[in-house]
Amino acid sequence: MAHISESTVRRLSHYYRVLEEVEAEGKRLISSHRLAEREGITSAQVRKDLSYFGSFGRRGLGYNVQHLRERIRGILGLDRRWRVALIGAGNIGAALLAYRGFARQGFDVVAVFDRDPLRIGQRLGEHGIRDIAELPRVAGELRIEMGVIATPVRAAQEVADLLVAAGVGGILNFAPRKLFVPAHVALRNVDMSVEFESLSFSLSQMGAGPRRRGRE
Amino acid sequence: MAHISESTVRRLSHYYRVLEEVEAEGKRLISSHRLAEREGITSAQVRKDLSYFGSFGRRGLGYNVQHLRERIRGILGLDRRWRVALIGAGNIGAALLAYRGFARQGFDVVAVFDRDPLRIGQRLGEHGIRDIAELPRVAGELRIEMGVIATPVRAAQEVADLLVAAGVGGILNFAPRKLFVPAHVALRNVDMSVEFESLSFSLSQMGAGPRRRGRE
Repeated sequence: MAHISESTVRRLSHYYRVLEEVEAEGKRLISSHRLAEREGITSAQVRKDLSYFGSFGRRGLGYNVQHLRERIRGILGLDRRWRVALIGAGNIGAALLAYRGFARQGFDVVAVFDRDPLRIGQRLGEHGIRDIAELPRVAGELRIEMGVIATPVRAAQEVADLLVAAGVGGILNFAPRKLFVPAHVALRNVDMSVEFESLSFSLSQMGAGPRRRGRE
Repeated sequence: MAHISESTVRRLSHYYRVLEEVEAEGKRLISSHRLAEREGITSAQVRKDLSYFGSFGRRGLGYNVQHLRERIRGILGLDRRWRVALIGAGNIGAALLAYRGFARQGFDVVAVFDRDPLRIGQRLGEHGIRDIAELPRVAGELRIEMGVIATPVRAAQEVADLLVAAGVGGILNFAPRKLFVPAHVALRNVDMSVEFESLSFSLSQMGAGPRRRGRE
């Protein structure tokens, strides 16, 4: 398969959501136009993205919803379950753990770590919080494949190093700093600032200040 | 200015980060190659993106760092301050409020709302938590421009409606559901699942399961 950019993968996630919705509505076929909806994607882009994966809609008919959904599900690695460790039992960690969508999509948090003695041994959701010092042993025993870093900035690189040393292949980083990992480890950074900037961009373009529809 | 897609805006955010780093290192010029670093962006894409905004690097010299950073800062609406309301004082809300980067970039949380009687009147960071019922009045008084929805799914649309009715022009939604707002309101959804899927995609492509470098 050709190299697939991160923005293509993001679009595939988007198509996957739309296909789930459309399948739930009982539809069998979908047009590239409908798949393009939202996010300023064009239908030409949709057709190009999907042609990479050998999926071709039929002119005037569109794509088979179920087939395409299964295909993208496989490409995104959602046709199996992933064993995830959460490191950092603070607010972000708790928010992530409380979100049920992850388990539904195949991401199972199997261990939670922290290094704060006040947290270790406490519970977070259904998990006992483990000492980060146990990560090297536990990662092997529980066959952990992904690590989610939800620690303060100052701890993030050290935790990433621990995950890499323990053989964890993928890291999702919520700490707002750049992390360094070897090339064989997949790293994704979640940067909330980007979302805020996207919004301030839109508001600036609209020439918006607050728009009042009358006050209460 | 031509229509700018959301993915272009995301890349501008990325360039902005790189420019900040490079400026802090005291460099005056930057190549499109360096700006392309990370995220699978090509230097051709960088040149195309920047040409939209009338910024042209000089062949063999590159772009002026300070000039380009100021330019992108203005485009992204980061050359002014934004008045933000946070709705939902749970884990996500607390995590967002604790992140100091936002204020540094010009996003000031000026009010925090919740509808849980146990939370109303308590403090979150330096803010007193207000009753969501006060939002229509307070949004006007404090001239709120952006609302961050960090509520449970079931409350999200109702909160969005309140924000729209109060004249708030931009909404950042952390609740994992689709929201409906009028076209004049800018809406961005933060979907953590997309990040997880990007990671499972990479791990699947690498044929990864856990990779052990020896156990402790």
